[in-house]
Amino acid sequence: MKVITLITDFTDLDGYAGIIKGVILGIDSTIRIVDISHSIPAQDVSQAAWMLGRSAPYFPPGTVHVSVVDPGVGTSRRGIIAQLGGQVFVGPDNGLLTVLYQRAVAQGEAPRIFELQNNRYKLPSPSFSFHGRDVFAPAAVHFLAGVPMDEFGKVVSDPVLLHLPKPLRTENGLQGEVIHVDAFGNLAANINAHDLESSANARIIIKNMEIIGVKNTFGDSLQGELLAIIDSFGHLSICVTNGSAAEKLGAGVGEAVRVTFLPV
Amino acid sequence: MKVITLITDFTDLDGYAGIIKGVILGIDSTIRIVDISHSIPAQDVSQAAWMLGRSAPYFPPGTVHVSVVDPGVGTSRRGIIAQLGGQVFVGPDNGLLTVLYQRAVAQGEAPRIFELQNNRYKLPSPSFSFHGRDVFAPAAVHFLAGVPMDEFGKVVSDPVLLHLPKPLRTENGLQGEVIHVDAFGNLAANINAHDLESSANARIIIKNMEIIGVKNTFGDSLQGELLAIIDSFGHLSICVTNGSAAEKLGAGVGEAVRVTFLPV
Amino acid sequence: MKVITLITDFTDLDGYAGIIKGVILGIDSTIRIVDISHSIPAQDVSQAAWMLGRSAPYFPPGTVHVSVVDPGVGTSRRGIIAQLGGQVFVGPDNGLLTVLYQRAVAQGEAPRIFELQNNRYKLPSPSFSFHGRDVFAPAAVHFLAGVPMDEFGKVVSDPVLLHLPKPLRTENGLQGEVIHVDAFGNLAANINAHDLESSANARIIIKNMEIIGVKNTFGDSLQGELLAIIDSFGHLSICVTNGSAAEKLGAGVGEAVRVTFLPV
Repeated sequence: MKVITLITDFTDLDGYAGIIKGVILGIDSTIRIVDISHSIPAQDVSQAAWMLGRSAPYFPPGTVHVSVVDPGVGTSRRGIIAQLGGQVFVGPDNGLLTVLYQRAVAQGEAPRIFELQNNRYKLPSPSFSFHGRDVFAPAAVHFLAGVPMDEFGKVVSDPVLLHLPKPLRTENGLQGEVIHVDAFGNLAANINAHDLESSANARIIIKNMEIIGVKNTFGDSLQGELLAIIDSFGHLSICVTNGSAAEKLGAGVGEAVRVTFLPV
Repeated sequence: MKVITLITDFTDLDGYAGIIKGVILGIDSTIRIVDISHSIPAQDVSQAAWMLGRSAPYFPPGTVHVSVVDPGVGTSRRGIIAQLGGQVFVGPDNGLLTVLYQRAVAQGEAPRIFELQNNRYKLPSPSFSFHGRDVFAPAAVHFLAGVPMDEFGKVVSDPVLLHLPKPLRTENGLQGEVIHVDAFGNLAANINAHDLESSANARIIIKNMEIIGVKNTFGDSLQGELLAIIDSFGHLSICVTNGSAAEKLGAGVGEAVRVTFLPV
Repeated sequence: MKVITLITDFTDLDGYAGIIKGVILGIDSTIRIVDISHSIPAQDVSQAAWMLGRSAPYFPPGTVHVSVVDPGVGTSRRGIIAQLGGQVFVGPDNGLLTVLYQRAVAQGEAPRIFELQNNRYKLPSPSFSFHGRDVFAPAAVHFLAGVPMDEFGKVVSDPVLLHLPKPLRTENGLQGEVIHVDAFGNLAANINAHDLESSANARIIIKNMEIIGVKNTFGDSLQGELLAIIDSFGHLSICVTNGSAAEKLGAGVGEAVRVTFLPV
């Protein structure tokens, strides 16, 4: 079974994601289409790259992820199709694939990336401003129909990669930052479970608030209490049980998160 | 054909519902997945229970409803799978199934409920904070693949049930309350068509406003007029033709609705 | 493969679109259902008509578009099924099909329209206030199952059509207006590419701002600059590169857009 996912900043207001689905089903109506999110903040490529990184591992091998957060649409920026870790990315060459690319490389895989040049695999007379519809969705479907990747265009050896913030080792711990705030107000940092020596003696500081220890889940704390957990994607996350840490702290993406380790 | 529905408080912001769909399609890509709503107010179990009650009758027999409004995730609260009235509920044991449960019992059926314990039917190393992905979605798919309910875990004879407000009989009528406000501002009360002796001589009082009689539909009234109808789910509903009763009255969930019957 | 699309003003809040999908899958679970949008402003029939016009060309022949923006539900307004340009419209007879109808007529086709009268193709005891669920969705499925259009009811020769604004020829150009503001704040006017004699010497005036020339795409301009493009649906569109023209100009649907042509 063929699966295409969509991540965009289109919202539900204008029908743009629906139109993309029309194009897909018009070429191959057996394809399963999954909306991951259409609520990426407008033109926020980093948020989409992180979301793609979080989501992709839960989709079957061979899934094609079409991601359209595309501030440079219609300029000379390239469109690309990329094989990364058993799945495929289709979208603008603006860094959206960064997390998947770096993960594939870390796992010893050699990403294969090609430019979307061949007009045979675009809608006729593609527009200058809606490549999701005219270029990316058709490429995804044609790839799933068996078109070899090198049929789309020439090899891309220098894809645009974002400089996503990485946590720094400090004298007695780590310095990271918030990379995602979810709808519940949980603040996920770019610090992973394996970055922490031990969770029991970690001291987390954000916005001059201090949290001692990393817990398993919200429920272990009192209603309204600030706590740190390892979230379900493996990130250190600052939360409030049945409340919003973002609101309580007035914190958002980019907020510094420092971790030090107390003597055991 | 196998159908899974989703009701959550995830919103579209974070990709969480999309990830659940990835998990489902990764196990069985032929399953049809229907979003009922991802806009339940955060952690509002009652609103989700009512919505499940309203929606389920319109889905085919055998449909599996995965509901994830789960303030207690990661604590000792149980996960359950329940056979209720020819359909199946999967989710946390926190009262989400209340309306479906009570309806099944009222129809003389004996609900069968089992705890989700068997790790074979969860994702490996389930997280503490995202059971929708790691426990509930996999359980739904495995059930649809033919796993008998008692394979999931031990019988649950005491599921958590919400004390949903019921209308009271008063000396000369009924006292109920608003249980749902829809996007149009219609105020649905926990008073059903069959609770009303007659619609013509009913006198409805909400927020010191009085409405005489229950009409068939919006269109029978003048633009902007307050009126009472039996809505499409059989509830007494306070509405404004082409306007918002919630806004006009400043009323929301929990607002008292009194009905008395005028002499005929 | 059978495809049904949905355009409504239901939002995601109440589960109404999900319930419609339950009804569809309950009759024929092989049908593919595509959400175009559920975020039409409440009861804004014109916005839905434009959206249907923009979207339909990207769906395969035979697609059935169920559109439910229905301020007159439950009154004597008719429900209709219409064959228009190789696709089918199902919904209230309130003008929703206007753009598709006029396009079909302009292409020399004779629209075939029938009233939804036959109770065999409705849910039992249809409600007065939710015809999307009880009348339109069932009609769409039964049509896709092979029920001839004239089985649904009598011919409709006078469908309700909206008076959608058309651009006026002025002495030295055109006078149009904004008909759609998308989530990015782009202002699409009811002036098409083929209405413009030439794009290079066009002078566009909106809210006392003047734009000279029509560009290919956002990326050709500086960040924050106001520009005019032909958008991906062929409309003259006022935009701000990586910003919102709606916000910058304080303009919305209905705002006047004048075009004059400078001497070459």
